[in-house]
Amino acid sequence: MPDMNQTRARLERHLPILTWAKTYSRDTLTSDLVAAVIVTIMLIPQSLAYALLAGLPAEMGLYASILPLVAYAIFGTSRALAVGPVAVVSLMTAAAVGNLALQGTAEYAAAAITLAFISGLILTVMGLFRLGFLANFLSHPVIAGFITASGILIATSQLKHILGVDAHGHNLVDLITSLMAHLPETNIFTLLIGLTALGFLFWVRKGLKPVLLNTGMPPRLADILAKAGPVGAVAVTTLAVWIFNLESHGVKIVGTVPTGLPPLSLPSFSADIWSSLFVSAVLISVIGFVESVSVATTLAAKKRQRIDPDQELVGLGTSNIAAAVSGGYPVTGGFARSVVNFDAGAETPAAGAFTAVGIALAALLLTPLLFFLPKATLAATIIVAVLSLVDFSILGKTWKYSRVDFAAVAATIVLTLGFGVETGVSAGVLLSLALFLYKTSRPHVAEVGLVPGTQHFRNILRHDVETHPSLVTLRIDESLYFANSRFLENYLLNRVACEQPIKNIVLMCSAVNEIDLSALESLEELNRLLGDMGIRLHLSEVKGPVMDRLLRSHFIEHLTGQVYLAQYDAMVALTPKEEAA
Amino acid sequence: MPDMNQTRARLERHLPILTWAKTYSRDTLTSDLVAAVIVTIMLIPQSLAYALLAGLPAEMGLYASILPLVAYAIFGTSRALAVGPVAVVSLMTAAAVGNLALQGTAEYAAAAITLAFISGLILTVMGLFRLGFLANFLSHPVIAGFITASGILIATSQLKHILGVDAHGHNLVDLITSLMAHLPETNIFTLLIGLTALGFLFWVRKGLKPVLLNTGMPPRLADILAKAGPVGAVAVTTLAVWIFNLESHGVKIVGTVPTGLPPLSLPSFSADIWSSLFVSAVLISVIGFVESVSVATTLAAKKRQRIDPDQELVGLGTSNIAAAVSGGYPVTGGFARSVVNFDAGAETPAAGAFTAVGIALAALLLTPLLFFLPKATLAATIIVAVLSLVDFSILGKTWKYSRVDFAAVAATIVLTLGFGVETGVSAGVLLSLALFLYKTSRPHVAEVGLVPGTQHFRNILRHDVETHPSLVTLRIDESLYFANSRFLENYLLNRVACEQPIKNIVLMCSAVNEIDLSALESLEELNRLLGDMGIRLHLSEVKGPVMDRLLRSHFIEHLTGQVYLAQYDAMVALTPKEEAA
Repeated sequence: MPDMNQTRARLERHLPILTWAKTYSRDTLTSDLVAAVIVTIMLIPQSLAYALLAGLPAEMGLYASILPLVAYAIFGTSRALAVGPVAVVSLMTAAAVGNLALQGTAEYAAAAITLAFISGLILTVMGLFRLGFLANFLSHPVIAGFITASGILIATSQLKHILGVDAHGHNLVDLITSLMAHLPETNIFTLLIGLTALGFLFWVRKGLKPVLLNTGMPPRLADILAKAGPVGAVAVTTLAVWIFNLESHGVKIVGTVPTGLPPLSLPSFSADIWSSLFVSAVLISVIGFVESVSVATTLAAKKRQRIDPDQELVGLGTSNIAAAVSGGYPVTGGFARSVVNFDAGAETPAAGAFTAVGIALAALLLTPLLFFLPKATLAATIIVAVLSLVDFSILGKTWKYSRVDFAAVAATIVLTLGFGVETGVSAGVLLSLALFLYKTSRPHVAEVGLVPGTQHFRNILRHDVETHPSLVTLRIDESLYFANSRFLENYLLNRVACEQPIKNIVLMCSAVNEIDLSALESLEELNRLLGDMGIRLHLSEVKGPVMDRLLRSHFIEHLTGQVYLAQYDAMVALTPKEEAA
Repeated sequence: MPDMNQTRARLERHLPILTWAKTYSRDTLTSDLVAAVIVTIMLIPQSLAYALLAGLPAEMGLYASILPLVAYAIFGTSRALAVGPVAVVSLMTAAAVGNLALQGTAEYAAAAITLAFISGLILTVMGLFRLGFLANFLSHPVIAGFITASGILIATSQLKHILGVDAHGHNLVDLITSLMAHLPETNIFTLLIGLTALGFLFWVRKGLKPVLLNTGMPPRLADILAKAGPVGAVAVTTLAVWIFNLESHGVKIVGTVPTGLPPLSLPSFSADIWSSLFVSAVLISVIGFVESVSVATTLAAKKRQRIDPDQELVGLGTSNIAAAVSGGYPVTGGFARSVVNFDAGAETPAAGAFTAVGIALAALLLTPLLFFLPKATLAATIIVAVLSLVDFSILGKTWKYSRVDFAAVAATIVLTLGFGVETGVSAGVLLSLALFLYKTSRPHVAEVGLVPGTQHFRNILRHDVETHPSLVTLRIDESLYFANSRFLENYLLNRVACEQPIKNIVLMCSAVNEIDLSALESLEELNRLLGDMGIRLHLSEVKGPVMDRLLRSHFIEHLTGQVYLAQYDAMVALTPKEEAA
């Protein structure tokens, strides 16, 4: 029954769980369970910390790490991606929701839930309409610049918790000004806890693993223990606050975290709220998707697996919708946790579902223990995590390789730092598109000649080639379209305005991938103008798809010259007569 | 003194009048004077009519045809372009200013003056910074669609004057709804005048010239007389209103037009007004410039002259500033009047300055005669003029040639008619850019083989070519940049996932005009992944500028294969060993 098979194939594409669940074995279960335990331990402090970064109650971080993981396990295609709150998306959530409500209010939390819902809808719809390619319009350098600048913004925004002061702002200038103004109010106990936690976490990152390896511990276990550093910092500082009653000395703590499973929540359906959150939701969706997909692709390639970007959109979309209905906020695939999940041996998305169970147990049983957890410790966790994202080498790399890429990165970094995440990333995308369009609007045109002894033509300025005074061959290194059609017209008319006895011009079209109607009209005009001057216009090496289209117009009929399959044929046909003369 | 010569050359570039004034002779003077008289006769009714279309007092049309022409004569580079109020720009003025003030108020006229000033500044600054290339981003089909839709909007908007009723709206639906609602109030005398004028003008356009030719009149004179038709209609209908006292029967007339030279006027410098007019001013500037430059280029080419687009921006910019300080409104180079000027023998921009004198005389002496001029006659002039702009053939042409171009035109027409000129033209530009980006994001990739007996490679699907199972050659028909880097990665990884014993992949880069950093990173990743599969990656026919850039990175060092100058060399190097085995 082919129909049945087709239906099953389609079902498996939309529900990847059907593919891997069929072959799920006891071995896979063991691997997944081990990975889940490790990721759970890592995720508990992270979830709390990122909720803090987003300006939300700590429990919303936990809630965002339960149901969304289950949704991704059903709809996602990556075997190792670990979904949940991540730093950049948390910062973007704070920026988006901060425009609508004050931190700490019920409206603020409700707006974050709505943001997750809108973002989930956008992602799911993009996935169903197979619009995953849209994410390609974010260039690598722009993303790299954006992540670096976001890391700096995030780290700076957390300094207030290390100092124990109030400070606000969505860009670097505001943040620093605000911090400076409140510096005299620094709480010395908070600062002590914060600096100790920072020092410990930085050391754990680099120094713990070698120490553990020296004790003869297996490398993988040492690696995992080093990743669990934040849990140690959380436990020790929480105990310290409790024992020394530091709360009464002004150390800010997490306080009561409700015990229990995530509550059922509903997004707002107010048109006002939707319209003010929509653009932010688009940006969060795209940034979250791009980050997530690149992690997933990298991990999949290591095991020769492939991921389906359009189905990934559905996976992340349903995760966000799941976050919205269970008191969470926008989530995506995180880099650090996915790598840990992969390294810990996760084989299927079931590992994610098991992690969800782990976090749910934490929400049920551990929340009372978090009462005395100092916010400074969570801030230290965030700072150490995001500083690893900061990497200015992209500036040097692009400067060396291409000034255009450099301009896009530099603008993204400066604008993100100066005007916040939304302005920064939007400007980066628009600028990189504008620069691409600008480049294509002034194409490189090379005058070419025959490389002696071959049938190959190269730039006369770079190679020692044969040419003939009556024949000019121009290789146009760009598709011809409206933005450069006038450029070509000017270039050619200037080229023929000389003493040289030009009789034939050949446009070598090996690099012309498209001729649109504007360019066709320019070519017709050129053909006419050159014809008036007694110069014949020829084409060579026109590609199949371009030629098909030209044949649908009257251009070839009116062309004063010929169309040659190969440039060599054009040269042979257009020079001997002259040489005989 | 080379310095002196340089200064003079620069001065002549910025003040084209210095070039032609040097060789100005009595013959040139005669030609220019004759052309000026003819254009003046044509311009008087047109200026009044377009002011009416813009919702402004009739005299502002005259004022916009005096000083701006002098400014263009000094700064413009076209010998035949006739500057002044034109239909599309007048409609755009009405749309822009209509958002700010009510027609007939002093604020409305002041806003139009300010609009001319802002537009003049934008054009001049663009010219000084040599940004004329920006206009290239308007594709020919989008312009054609926009002009056609504007023509329909303009003609419809004038029907109210033919019927003698009130009606308003900036899009077709509003205009028609409003006309239908007021239809019962139709004034029968107005309708009679309007229809007679329409019939007469349509007949003059097609039928007058043959009649005159039959009387033995020289063709050029017949042509010019036919162009003067509107003056006849104005004279006869004005007389009719006066003699039969039609004003008292409800026929709307132009009324008092102040006598005298243009008053000195100043634009508003209110930040509010500037910010609400700015986007409109950009659109008017760009549309006006594109229209004007294409007329100027066409006329210049007929006499083997060239125009300088950047200096044209300065010419039009100063014209608009001149309009703003002399009680006018936005102007640009008009198609019909420039052709008349050219045909009448104008040899230098001095013809424009003489026309300005003619219009100034009219403003001084003829305005009392315009008192009884019925608005219906002016509306008929506009309708006949703009219907010649309406040309739906662009739809058929693009449909046949390229669906992408068709989509851009159709959207421009539909949105201009449905949502007004500003939405229409903005959407057209954005859509054509988006479609171009979309196309480049999914490049055509052809698998190629050797055309037997040559060194030439073509698509294996279109040509009978030689290939070898262990060697796959892919010609990528697009520059590699961020928007398509992931596409290429997917394409190649899917291509090698087959039974074929592929050992070498050659990317033939003859059509790759650029590899940006995102694409480079994708290529590095591909090189690594293919290397893991035991497949070597080679490049061939890499262009000079692209190779220069690749050498600045570490890509070539890490490449598992070679870079070949010619694809034929790659084929020779990579197949014989296999064939011997």
